[in-house]
Amino acid sequence: MEDEYRSMLAPRFTGIPTFMRTPYTRDASQLDIALIGVPYDGATENRPGARHGPREIRNASSMMRSIHHVTKINPYSLCRVGDVGDVPMESMFDVEATHRDITAFYQKITDAGALPLSAGGDHSISLPILRAIATDGPVGLIQIDAHLDTFDEEMGSKFSHGTPFRRAVEEGLLDPKRVVQIGIRGAVNDEAAWDYSAQSGMRVIFIEEFVDLGVEGVATEVHRIVGKDPIYLSFDIDGLDPAYAPGTGTPEIGGMTSLEAQMLMRRFRGLNLIGADVVEVSPPFDTAGQTALVGATLMYEILCMMVEGLNSRKK
Amino acid sequence: MEDEYRSMLAPRFTGIPTFMRTPYTRDASQLDIALIGVPYDGATENRPGARHGPREIRNASSMMRSIHHVTKINPYSLCRVGDVGDVPMESMFDVEATHRDITAFYQKITDAGALPLSAGGDHSISLPILRAIATDGPVGLIQIDAHLDTFDEEMGSKFSHGTPFRRAVEEGLLDPKRVVQIGIRGAVNDEAAWDYSAQSGMRVIFIEEFVDLGVEGVATEVHRIVGKDPIYLSFDIDGLDPAYAPGTGTPEIGGMTSLEAQMLMRRFRGLNLIGADVVEVSPPFDTAGQTALVGATLMYEILCMMVEGLNSRKK
Amino acid sequence: MEDEYRSMLAPRFTGIPTFMRTPYTRDASQLDIALIGVPYDGATENRPGARHGPREIRNASSMMRSIHHVTKINPYSLCRVGDVGDVPMESMFDVEATHRDITAFYQKITDAGALPLSAGGDHSISLPILRAIATDGPVGLIQIDAHLDTFDEEMGSKFSHGTPFRRAVEEGLLDPKRVVQIGIRGAVNDEAAWDYSAQSGMRVIFIEEFVDLGVEGVATEVHRIVGKDPIYLSFDIDGLDPAYAPGTGTPEIGGMTSLEAQMLMRRFRGLNLIGADVVEVSPPFDTAGQTALVGATLMYEILCMMVEGLNSRKK
Amino acid sequence: MEDEYRSMLAPRFTGIPTFMRTPYTRDASQLDIALIGVPYDGATENRPGARHGPREIRNASSMMRSIHHVTKINPYSLCRVGDVGDVPMESMFDVEATHRDITAFYQKITDAGALPLSAGGDHSISLPILRAIATDGPVGLIQIDAHLDTFDEEMGSKFSHGTPFRRAVEEGLLDPKRVVQIGIRGAVNDEAAWDYSAQSGMRVIFIEEFVDLGVEGVATEVHRIVGKDPIYLSFDIDGLDPAYAPGTGTPEIGGMTSLEAQMLMRRFRGLNLIGADVVEVSPPFDTAGQTALVGATLMYEILCMMVEGLNSRKK
Amino acid sequence: MEDEYRSMLAPRFTGIPTFMRTPYTRDASQLDIALIGVPYDGATENRPGARHGPREIRNASSMMRSIHHVTKINPYSLCRVGDVGDVPMESMFDVEATHRDITAFYQKITDAGALPLSAGGDHSISLPILRAIATDGPVGLIQIDAHLDTFDEEMGSKFSHGTPFRRAVEEGLLDPKRVVQIGIRGAVNDEAAWDYSAQSGMRVIFIEEFVDLGVEGVATEVHRIVGKDPIYLSFDIDGLDPAYAPGTGTPEIGGMTSLEAQMLMRRFRGLNLIGADVVEVSPPFDTAGQTALVGATLMYEILCMMVEGLNSRKK
Amino acid sequence: MEDEYRSMLAPRFTGIPTFMRTPYTRDASQLDIALIGVPYDGATENRPGARHGPREIRNASSMMRSIHHVTKINPYSLCRVGDVGDVPMESMFDVEATHRDITAFYQKITDAGALPLSAGGDHSISLPILRAIATDGPVGLIQIDAHLDTFDEEMGSKFSHGTPFRRAVEEGLLDPKRVVQIGIRGAVNDEAAWDYSAQSGMRVIFIEEFVDLGVEGVATEVHRIVGKDPIYLSFDIDGLDPAYAPGTGTPEIGGMTSLEAQMLMRRFRGLNLIGADVVEVSPPFDTAGQTALVGATLMYEILCMMVEGLNSRKK
Repeated sequence: MEDEYRSMLAPRFTGIPTFMRTPYTRDASQLDIALIGVPYDGATENRPGARHGPREIRNASSMMRSIHHVTKINPYSLCRVGDVGDVPMESMFDVEATHRDITAFYQKITDAGALPLSAGGDHSISLPILRAIATDGPVGLIQIDAHLDTFDEEMGSKFSHGTPFRRAVEEGLLDPKRVVQIGIRGAVNDEAAWDYSAQSGMRVIFIEEFVDLGVEGVATEVHRIVGKDPIYLSFDIDGLDPAYAPGTGTPEIGGMTSLEAQMLMRRFRGLNLIGADVVEVSPPFDTAGQTALVGATLMYEILCMMVEGLNSRKK
Repeated sequence: MEDEYRSMLAPRFTGIPTFMRTPYTRDASQLDIALIGVPYDGATENRPGARHGPREIRNASSMMRSIHHVTKINPYSLCRVGDVGDVPMESMFDVEATHRDITAFYQKITDAGALPLSAGGDHSISLPILRAIATDGPVGLIQIDAHLDTFDEEMGSKFSHGTPFRRAVEEGLLDPKRVVQIGIRGAVNDEAAWDYSAQSGMRVIFIEEFVDLGVEGVATEVHRIVGKDPIYLSFDIDGLDPAYAPGTGTPEIGGMTSLEAQMLMRRFRGLNLIGADVVEVSPPFDTAGQTALVGATLMYEILCMMVEGLNSRKK
Repeated sequence: MEDEYRSMLAPRFTGIPTFMRTPYTRDASQLDIALIGVPYDGATENRPGARHGPREIRNASSMMRSIHHVTKINPYSLCRVGDVGDVPMESMFDVEATHRDITAFYQKITDAGALPLSAGGDHSISLPILRAIATDGPVGLIQIDAHLDTFDEEMGSKFSHGTPFRRAVEEGLLDPKRVVQIGIRGAVNDEAAWDYSAQSGMRVIFIEEFVDLGVEGVATEVHRIVGKDPIYLSFDIDGLDPAYAPGTGTPEIGGMTSLEAQMLMRRFRGLNLIGADVVEVSPPFDTAGQTALVGATLMYEILCMMVEGLNSRKK
Repeated sequence: MEDEYRSMLAPRFTGIPTFMRTPYTRDASQLDIALIGVPYDGATENRPGARHGPREIRNASSMMRSIHHVTKINPYSLCRVGDVGDVPMESMFDVEATHRDITAFYQKITDAGALPLSAGGDHSISLPILRAIATDGPVGLIQIDAHLDTFDEEMGSKFSHGTPFRRAVEEGLLDPKRVVQIGIRGAVNDEAAWDYSAQSGMRVIFIEEFVDLGVEGVATEVHRIVGKDPIYLSFDIDGLDPAYAPGTGTPEIGGMTSLEAQMLMRRFRGLNLIGADVVEVSPPFDTAGQTALVGATLMYEILCMMVEGLNSRKK
Repeated sequence: MEDEYRSMLAPRFTGIPTFMRTPYTRDASQLDIALIGVPYDGATENRPGARHGPREIRNASSMMRSIHHVTKINPYSLCRVGDVGDVPMESMFDVEATHRDITAFYQKITDAGALPLSAGGDHSISLPILRAIATDGPVGLIQIDAHLDTFDEEMGSKFSHGTPFRRAVEEGLLDPKRVVQIGIRGAVNDEAAWDYSAQSGMRVIFIEEFVDLGVEGVATEVHRIVGKDPIYLSFDIDGLDPAYAPGTGTPEIGGMTSLEAQMLMRRFRGLNLIGADVVEVSPPFDTAGQTALVGATLMYEILCMMVEGLNSRKK
Repeated sequence: MEDEYRSMLAPRFTGIPTFMRTPYTRDASQLDIALIGVPYDGATENRPGARHGPREIRNASSMMRSIHHVTKINPYSLCRVGDVGDVPMESMFDVEATHRDITAFYQKITDAGALPLSAGGDHSISLPILRAIATDGPVGLIQIDAHLDTFDEEMGSKFSHGTPFRRAVEEGLLDPKRVVQIGIRGAVNDEAAWDYSAQSGMRVIFIEEFVDLGVEGVATEVHRIVGKDPIYLSFDIDGLDPAYAPGTGTPEIGGMTSLEAQMLMRRFRGLNLIGADVVEVSPPFDTAGQTALVGATLMYEILCMMVEGLNSRKK
């Protein structure tokens, strides 16, 4: 392990908490993968608090270590990984202006040549991130979530956290035929999102089908649909059952377990990931901190997968 | 959706909390299904607090929406559903007097022609409810629970929350041959309840058999036993594992998951339900509110099933 | 006590929770004092959650009773008091639009002839309320708070919860010479608010002066400044020390006690109150519910004072 | 310190928790002062949980030590003090039967020659305790409380936790002229208790008068009223402000501080105490355990005072 | 049930909490199985608090009862089981000295002829326990854990809670060929422990293999490896997923469920257990007490298994 | 405000948390005052967790701002203040070795010419800090605390958190005649610490005397005793009442309020402070985070005072 990752060897409760205890730098050009916080929850129509997500995920991520127990990958020996801090937001009371701030920040990351792995924030942030990174045409999407987030409008807004993936298709950022939505469940007041996902060609795997197919079957289906072209991965923590991830704004009972999520992530090795996020961890509702730990661990799982993909493409 | 259910479209944190944000009315004659709170825990021999259950379940039920994601049923477009408030109790320090108050209230609901779907309260409330609604002879029972609740006596009382279903058989309210008890587990100091359930002919599915049979197998067994005649459904939240439902008075580890419970409920479509309850949610022990959410969601699942059954019988 | 207030006699954990268990009505014309929830926290620049304030204050307010132990007033026998529900908000992601929704709602209350007593919500709500009720020229203000809330702008917005009283002066809603700000403390990054309050003529009583003067001295000073003309009272719960009110977005240690706040409120009997609010109770940070109880009790204290004033003016 | 109190020297987190880590014995005849748990909350009309009080107070009492920092008394070197366990209750669902169980247990303590110092349990327990120990005619009472507990009836019962001291007067256990009630506050729905306390001759010191008189003034008044004859001391933890004692069933804001309570207790040295209790600690609402610590410390303060009195009378 | 176990029939919230409410005795010679607390966490390199484990497990163990619902064993009618209290520790700031105190205490238990079933404490305690009981040559080990705990050194110490089983092999207390480590997962900074377990011949069942084999397959493998000779069982509570056991110092997501753990334990009937422990329950991180309940229940499951084995060997 | 302190203007929930959001640097030579974390609780004889103190105090310190509301000082415009991170500890299981690590780190800070302001950790850390900074002969001490911490030995150790100030006198680091201990209270098992403080000439102000003298009187007494020579300030958070600071290892009820502590600190302007610490904040027991906020605010108060003193001496 190189010297700059030695902080990982210190007692876990010590030191300034960066993501995974990686070095903190505002210069993404020195990085292959940039870990980013997006402390924004202004587009949340229900319980707020995801603005506190990046800080608590950073805190919990001190519990992470380096060598993955299944893949035996040490991401830090294969790639340069660092924490570039949080997106600065000048207008936190204005959703669209904040989305512009987010896009601007990610463009710098992209220009610097680093892939972004982000901690939200509410799910609305995936849209401005995609605006920055899907610059070569529409990309695919693997979305783990309880909700489709393809509504047209919510509480009078087209940019709430229930709408990002519809906007992304409309804006040519996502190819709906290469979108898979996994773990969906819960009643709706309006079938508009179900209809949109179905009609635009997205593949929706409700949690009941997830149970039927099993992790392996779902993974096979994902590979079939998203193929080898660039993909974004978005993990809404409410894809998990609230027993595993209670600290979120819109929990839905009957979700997947942490272990299922981890095993699923590992099956995505080899995909062409151009970025990923873990969103909707809401610390004020995470009374024992367990959701932040889940979020941090999923970021680590995704990091290992991204590194492996990046590394194989480099060769 | 009719106008009176429009409150469901408001932000979830707004408004006076009724069950599922349905209209509040004390007149059950306008309803097909009456949602009722029974804030009583005076028959609890262990950790109290279920008296606060109805209020917190109502609070959490604002998270519910209308169209079920599996059955595609919107219960509010098929039936008239409303919240008739809590049972008034004049003598909360006297178990038997309170049971009489409960029975009296449910008789009015029944007389008005509505089916009751209740939130407890401790499990003792199922007995006075059955006294009001099992007026045409013994009915069947589907009970999800960690405990049999067929003791003869507990802490010197014949009416504690460990005894309701033995009393109900003795009083001719339940036909033990049409009783299924699912998810049972945990040590006992006295085999009396095991013996009673077995000897009276109840079908006891311990959690280990539940695992062996799977949801589908259990559902088949339930249908075989309870048949098409009137049935009451009683869901003690401690049937779930405490990871899913920690906020209860007598938790037993090793229970079912929320998703298993939901999938089981959905397999009861078509049964002739004449009432149901969700009991033993104890908010003081539900430190993060997750048990109230589980309770509210199970009420919604049961509501959809009851509506569907009612609707099919109407035709 | 009239029949409609009999719900207050039921066990405190029962029933649909309205403010103080008063009757729920959307028709303010039947009321002298309207209790209102404003579940809005979209102008909060720090920890969110005050959107959940009205619901939890209603919940806690079931602990209230009718006859005040010091003044011996029973507000319900002197005036008609009811809960008119929450302000409907059509555009919760747009601060200014939501402020318009709030003003519109309060205009209806005012038109109906009722005085508003509100539960927030963040402190930004006082501005749109004043727009509706300060229609006969600038009014006075008694503000209990840790912060002046007279900044010109915060995080790029002129309508954040740190700005309402500057806007109110600018809009001619408040007469700064009749404004008293009590309990102020905590460091600032910018002296703009201190300067504005001082230069516009507001009377600022920092907590250190509060300790010196004592409750009696402060009350005398308040009477001297606000006089007998119409006054609005705004109680930001962070005026209290976090030991008493931890559940708020911007706690500042070193505040007043609950008892000091109560004794201060009672000394305001006889003032010409045209409305009041209790704001910034943030349930997600109120882990044991004590702040909601403080908020509910302060609403009751203020209610008694408003009723008494109203009653004396009626005569 | 005698050998049997050496357990107090072990690390505080070790060992089976008895009250103050005194020896556990069922034989009160070896004791001067018997520490007793009364885990009963069946007479609570609001939030339950005080049944868990004795266990958590025992747990917290491991934090206690032996030599008092003001009086320099070591109670264990002056008297024999032990934990006699909890009152066995045969009929926990029947208030009056449980009260008989309590009285029977205390009669044995009294017969054995020990003075009881008890941890509740709800406030109803003071009545059956007085029945056992006030056998030589009516005694005096020092009551610290937010509520008078002299109602005639509550929720249909004459034996709820709101009634014990009226019953005690009626039964000739208390001399109302030698009763002082301190810290009273909070609204009422019915003036019956205020009237009863006043008319029977009890001295009621509302919290506002407490503030005016100060600890010293209150103590002087108490000495004047209760005199040198036998007195019972009953400390309802809700006499304290909820900032100090949140874990109780019927909190009222605006109460005294822990330090005021401690200083008051110490001023009762020299009184002729024949027993005492600390009641209404409700662990399910005591989310951080601080109320149990306050309860344990107040028991220690009272113990020191009882020991000192007993010791001086012995001489 | 013999008289001395009658305390189990009392309400669960009453009485001085011993393990399972068994009799408390310092004389192990009257016991077949001694329940022991080891309140030590001085070897914890991450989040502390396991020192409070024995007390809270005792507290939660009042929820246990006597007759096992699957095996129908009543351990108390087959063997003499009692609580011998906590290990006295004279030098809690010195790891090695404390380990000597632990060994000395267990030697007395062993000399008295009782088998120890312990509640930790951190995992370092297994080493000094093995020193006392593996006196006839190396024994086998069944370890349920997220971590191997076979590091050579951690934070500069050879006796941290990450090293006990390497030390035990080196000291001839364990036969690595008869060691099975189950549920292992989580990244590492250093492969030393993986290498040591593998090279010394221990059988490591990572959680992924656990999922593949199922409880039955794992149990078969365990029986194959450990055989019929003496075995020690060590259950680190972090073997469970944090959804089931959040209250621990080094949680790793993706673990087994409580029910899987219980079913696994029951399959170990017939093994020759000479002792067992449940470690790493850390109450300060167990905000709702559920981990202590899991710990207590697993102790009961293990007790039943030990009793059965002991009983069969007696015959 | 200089550019490097601009991070204080960002939303409080954003960014990597350093103390007060000052710049992070490992080079103390650029600083006048170095903010330091000492995440060590290995000398705690009761409830652990202070190792997590620095991290949570840093987290809460984002709530701080720059200009003090009473003194109008902006410490960042007068001095260079930065966060130099946590003390690296190589041997966290060995108290004396860790103390050596602490001393070595502080010697570097001192050599670089910066004054240290530290966040603990348990109170044992004050000793190794004094070893590094009291190099020109014994210094004075202002200690706010519930406990004297002048025991000779605790749990077999001379270096526990109950002993640092006796050791410091013995080692010639403190002049006992210039030591004031404020807020002391709570029973003891052994009068040794009381005796030592008294006999060595320390001035002990028990909380009762604190109440009598008032903040002003205590401050006068402190000035009289410590004079103008170099002084160290040590603030044990348990000096506050647990209502204000529940998150600590050895809480004692009956302490001072936050406001009293703040007002006392401000009266120490002008003293010759050569260093200070805030210790014993234990996040695992700080369930709502309020103690970390108090700790952070007290650090800010002390910082302002240190800056002012430093600044006046510079001139």
